Amino acid sequence: MSCLDQLKFDANGLIPAIVQEQKTGRVLMMAWMNRASLEKTLATGKTHFWSRSRQKFWMKGETSGHTQQVKDVAYDCDGDTLLIQVEQIGAACHEGYQSCFFRSMQDGGKEFKITEERLENPEQIYGKK
Amino acid sequence: MSCLDQLKFDANGLIPAIVQEQKTGRVLMMAWMNRASLEKTLATGKTHFWSRSRQKFWMKGETSGHTQQVKDVAYDCDGDTLLIQVEQIGAACHEGYQSCFFRSMQDGGKEFKITEERLENPEQIYGKK
Repeated sequence: MSCLDQLKFDANGLIPAIVQEQKTGRVLMMAWMNRASLEKTLATGKTHFWSRSRQKFWMKGETSGHTQQVKDVAYDCDGDTLLIQVEQIGAACHEGYQSCFFRSMQDGGKEFKITEERLENPEQIYGKK
Repeated sequence: MSCLDQLKFDANGLIPAIVQEQKTGRVLMMAWMNRASLEKTLATGKTHFWSRSRQKFWMKGETSGHTQQVKDVAYDCDGDTLLIQVEQIGAACHEGYQSCFFRSMQDGGKEFKITEERLENPEQIYGKK
């Protein structure tokens, strides 16, 4: 796979993947992939990542049903970041927002503002904890 | 600065910053910030980063003139990634493309395709090397 050989995975074998909703241009999330999760993403057309906190391979939506259908996989000039265009089912953020980037800084970083409506209650997505 | 205290910088004191052109939604680049470069970005309204390869604080456009005027700084649910909306002057990519993500994978990663026109010759931007 020639493109994959051009990529620079970091010392932990990971590369950051920015996920953007193709139809709206909204940046939904950023997560990490290792080579195996990128290969699985390309082979299945569903995004797969590597969780650094859980040290675990995961498919986006495996618990919530909020999968991402891959439309395009681009990589940057340095070969060390991916940009993945997707069709997103449901909310991308585990907190129930469309995008994980639902807070914007205000007043030079002193305050923040929530810039999106919450689409779903996390308890409805993942069950009560 | 309360928002900055909510951010999780990595073991090297860095956080990835995705830069998006506000008016088009095009994701232009991803680069790394430390706390000082984020503070400088917020204070000046121009993006500043930390170069891991050069171990150096830099302002985007300091050599090329292709600066980024900051319109919004958002951060994600985990507080470990930034999304910065900008007005971009000239090409964002040092290779002369609008975006650093000018190559898309084809055929499951076996090939790539250049998806943008080159706007400028890098020699014109940075001078002959």
